[in-house]
Amino acid sequence: MPDYKAPLRDMRFVLDDLLDAENHYAALQGRTEFDNETRDAIINEAAKLAENVLSPINQSGDAEGCKFVDGNVTTPTGFADAFKAYAEGGWAGMVATEEVGGQNLPASAGILVNELLGSANWAWNMYTGLTFGAVKCINEHGNDSQREVYVSKMVEGIWTGTMCITEAHCGSDVGQARTKAEPQEDGSYKISGAKHFVTGGDHDMAENIVHLTLARIVGAPEGTAGISLFIVPKFMPDSEGNPGERNPVFAGSIEKKMGIKGSSTCVMNFDGATGFIVGGENTGLQQMFTMMNEARLGTGLQGLCMAQLAYQGSLAYAKDRLAMRSLTGVKNPDGPADPIIVHPDVRRMLLTQKAFTEGFRAFLYELSFDGDKINNGATEEIQKAAGDRMALLTPIAKAFCTELGFESSNLGLQIFGGHGYVHEWGMEQIVRDCRISMVYEGTTGIQALDLIGRKVLGSGGELLRNYTKEIYKFCKANEADEALKEQVEQLLALNTQWGELTMEIGGKAENLDEIGAASVDFLMFGGYVAMAYTWLRMSKVAQEKLAEGTTEEAFYSAKVKTADFYFKRLLPRAQAHAQSALGGADCLMDMDEDQFAF
Amino acid sequence: MPDYKAPLRDMRFVLDDLLDAENHYAALQGRTEFDNETRDAIINEAAKLAENVLSPINQSGDAEGCKFVDGNVTTPTGFADAFKAYAEGGWAGMVATEEVGGQNLPASAGILVNELLGSANWAWNMYTGLTFGAVKCINEHGNDSQREVYVSKMVEGIWTGTMCITEAHCGSDVGQARTKAEPQEDGSYKISGAKHFVTGGDHDMAENIVHLTLARIVGAPEGTAGISLFIVPKFMPDSEGNPGERNPVFAGSIEKKMGIKGSSTCVMNFDGATGFIVGGENTGLQQMFTMMNEARLGTGLQGLCMAQLAYQGSLAYAKDRLAMRSLTGVKNPDGPADPIIVHPDVRRMLLTQKAFTEGFRAFLYELSFDGDKINNGATEEIQKAAGDRMALLTPIAKAFCTELGFESSNLGLQIFGGHGYVHEWGMEQIVRDCRISMVYEGTTGIQALDLIGRKVLGSGGELLRNYTKEIYKFCKANEADEALKEQVEQLLALNTQWGELTMEIGGKAENLDEIGAASVDFLMFGGYVAMAYTWLRMSKVAQEKLAEGTTEEAFYSAKVKTADFYFKRLLPRAQAHAQSALGGADCLMDMDEDQFAF
Repeated sequence: MPDYKAPLRDMRFVLDDLLDAENHYAALQGRTEFDNETRDAIINEAAKLAENVLSPINQSGDAEGCKFVDGNVTTPTGFADAFKAYAEGGWAGMVATEEVGGQNLPASAGILVNELLGSANWAWNMYTGLTFGAVKCINEHGNDSQREVYVSKMVEGIWTGTMCITEAHCGSDVGQARTKAEPQEDGSYKISGAKHFVTGGDHDMAENIVHLTLARIVGAPEGTAGISLFIVPKFMPDSEGNPGERNPVFAGSIEKKMGIKGSSTCVMNFDGATGFIVGGENTGLQQMFTMMNEARLGTGLQGLCMAQLAYQGSLAYAKDRLAMRSLTGVKNPDGPADPIIVHPDVRRMLLTQKAFTEGFRAFLYELSFDGDKINNGATEEIQKAAGDRMALLTPIAKAFCTELGFESSNLGLQIFGGHGYVHEWGMEQIVRDCRISMVYEGTTGIQALDLIGRKVLGSGGELLRNYTKEIYKFCKANEADEALKEQVEQLLALNTQWGELTMEIGGKAENLDEIGAASVDFLMFGGYVAMAYTWLRMSKVAQEKLAEGTTEEAFYSAKVKTADFYFKRLLPRAQAHAQSALGGADCLMDMDEDQFAF
Repeated sequence: MPDYKAPLRDMRFVLDDLLDAENHYAALQGRTEFDNETRDAIINEAAKLAENVLSPINQSGDAEGCKFVDGNVTTPTGFADAFKAYAEGGWAGMVATEEVGGQNLPASAGILVNELLGSANWAWNMYTGLTFGAVKCINEHGNDSQREVYVSKMVEGIWTGTMCITEAHCGSDVGQARTKAEPQEDGSYKISGAKHFVTGGDHDMAENIVHLTLARIVGAPEGTAGISLFIVPKFMPDSEGNPGERNPVFAGSIEKKMGIKGSSTCVMNFDGATGFIVGGENTGLQQMFTMMNEARLGTGLQGLCMAQLAYQGSLAYAKDRLAMRSLTGVKNPDGPADPIIVHPDVRRMLLTQKAFTEGFRAFLYELSFDGDKINNGATEEIQKAAGDRMALLTPIAKAFCTELGFESSNLGLQIFGGHGYVHEWGMEQIVRDCRISMVYEGTTGIQALDLIGRKVLGSGGELLRNYTKEIYKFCKANEADEALKEQVEQLLALNTQWGELTMEIGGKAENLDEIGAASVDFLMFGGYVAMAYTWLRMSKVAQEKLAEGTTEEAFYSAKVKTADFYFKRLLPRAQAHAQSALGGADCLMDMDEDQFAF
């Protein structure tokens, strides 16, 4: 496993050079005052936790995995201690409001920490991610007493949270859920049923676990309209708020998974467990949905984390490993062969990883700034614009970054050759850990339907038009710039094409299968365009720095070169997706079910 | 793990409808007479072994893995018994010559059996694949006594063979090998050194193991010109030819791998082990190379096998799993939701798997017919043409089929959603097992250099011209056909583009980095064109059958529809690769090594 090094320089480039974070922070309302200095102090501390505590237990955590013994889950060696260090560092309360004991920092600050901890050890970091979700959900939809009892403990980092959504027979199709809630005289409910794929459903790192659980109140309507949300604690809080009586919600087993083995994935059996409703009856799904943008952004972040970690490993290896001579002459005359970084195709793989890693980082950080503005922007107009932008781009962030994070992880393995395939070097673990990212929090297919259906066509095209206008304005403002001109023209053409593609697909929407048929390619096309827009702005900023004169010429010129690589070698894929998206539904739907036979 | 079902119908379609196997077999010289009837009897028997013996121990073999205890490797439960059944069935001698006890059937018949056994259990099948390689190598380059002692036992299926090539510090770059051979007075050699990644280096399935080992005779030239090939038996054959004294070649450890866990991958330590030279001194690499086309074709086959197995699993699941309603109205009114095969994007994934699986099958079988003709074609002209065709297409078969076999395996997991990520269903195992295929027997990058460097430019373009002429002739012969016209035009344009792309890249060959920079995209482009040519011929044949009238209308019309899907939804990727290939070397090589830093 590569020793993870926090990419602090690049983080600051994105935050300060590209996104002007200082002004962004200053403009937010209703958050603790925040500035670059505080932020840098935070990421420096988080980097230490990531590098010194979490990275060293990443590979061992995979080898050891979670264990299920006598109905209890134990996490790998070191996980519980790391969680203690995390709680003591106050990380669990960073973005929570002050009234529940949090520091009330901007949500985007949480993403930075999340990247650092998640790159170092994604499996471990999942426990904290789910807990953040539970905090946010109860905070927004729960009552004061629930906030006081449950949220404050999670913010302290001594309890954790889960989401109990999926059942064996239904994943994305939550409306099929059968878990039952029976009202009790005291206002609580008895919850019965079984939930699958519950991340952190049981473990040995916290005193108590707060299960946010979707269930159907007896007599409620069928489908999604009859789903309510409940708090089901592992231990009932006593009058002091400490863990008391055991509530009958038990882990029945843990899944044996391809990867993220240090993260416990449980079947949770609710045997008439006591639950407390959050918000109103039958509104559970909407309440879960309020967390969805952040959860999906957080999963998109996994694509960045895995791509980054794989890149760190393969870059070091490519400089070190000697094989063959460069085709253009010996580069390492004192050695038996040249380091493989001299070979063009190895560089193609490294630059692909680099372009996606740094492109994702910029794209996701910018999106997290939108996230800040949704609640804390200075005006309603800013809030709405940010909300619209985030709504449009979240499915792209989730699906595009994970699909290509997986490609980047695989390139990391590939650069190692046969050594990449064995556990020892840790490269294959990154591939295994990354693979789930295209599945959970809504598969790539689900994201694609969300994008084209709900976001683009559902808004009558408005959300997309806002974004393509933003790109258009940028292009127009820079089309006279000789150094950017060629790439601006490419981006402008693609931007126009995005609108045309939407019109063409939307024009066939009378047959809704046309939407589904085009959806994934449409999303991927959009992802490549958004990434081009992101890279071009980074290139522009870097060129400005170079023109001003800088002591970091190598760093900034690398940005310009990587942008060039992206436009020449990766962006052409956008056309393949556009063409494929226009392939239409007939070639999918005309096939009778029996004809799929082999 | 999906219960593997041998795709006998589709195999016969490719062999008989597309490739006219009966006439192909009849025209071969110097092989045991062979016809479709015999072949069908063989594949029916092999299907039973695959379905009933090997498939049931595929998932358990992964879970159990190979074990290394006290210096010996044990294979998973059932592996040794399966090998006994395989030996007793006479499978080990199918394609070997009669003088060593084989049946001397065409090599292409071996590929059919290989597909069946390999799809059912790739990890198990690797032991046989390496043994075939050892048989072929000693048969061609060894002396009579070596054939008698070693080959006959492997052909009987009671000994197995390995290739000991890689060392820890050198994989593809074999010239760096340090393993040493000291000549002895009796004409034998003492071999000392360590070889890594030796498949089947030790196991408990056979009486003896024949290690074909590359080593450098003391005083031989450096680099590849000083490498010789040796037979190093685990047990020295006694005067009766039975395993006698233990030769000091020992497994030092087994690798813990991402997948193919039932296949033992050993570090082999040669502690002055006795070896016998095969062929002349310092010609070891050429001798290994004679096996390479077949070994690479065999690895390309893994792409087919994994894609097929994943498709079988995900197709069954897609028909069974109920989630959401079809966007165009309820399709399963009696159930709580529709089966997911109604959703266009699920069909896109299934059809991608189907198009690649069946396309690979046709492409690889045709290539195996070329392989038959190289040695057994009726005239020298036929032999040469087949050899040229195979030389050109083998790197495509290896790299393209494994890259997209991996994509297809991943789509299989994806269709299962969260269930695909857990061991239980076996879908993630297919992804893990498949992942090595892009690495061993020469990575995708190595194949790509072989294609563009040695095969295309190295032949002054001749090998490629022969193939594009073949495609051109087909297109011209069918351009008037209304039903095929549109796709013929597409193929014709791509075929022309292939030549132009080659000229353009070749024109920059003064800087050899340009070749490396374009290589992988050039290979992938060629793969998509070759696949289009293959699918278009399948569509034509199927349309003829439909026109003639057939009782299997569903089967044949599925071929036409899948071809249509391929042209509309997958072939557009060719343009992305062409564009990227033209992106040039500068955007790769201009980056200083330090600038890759993050």
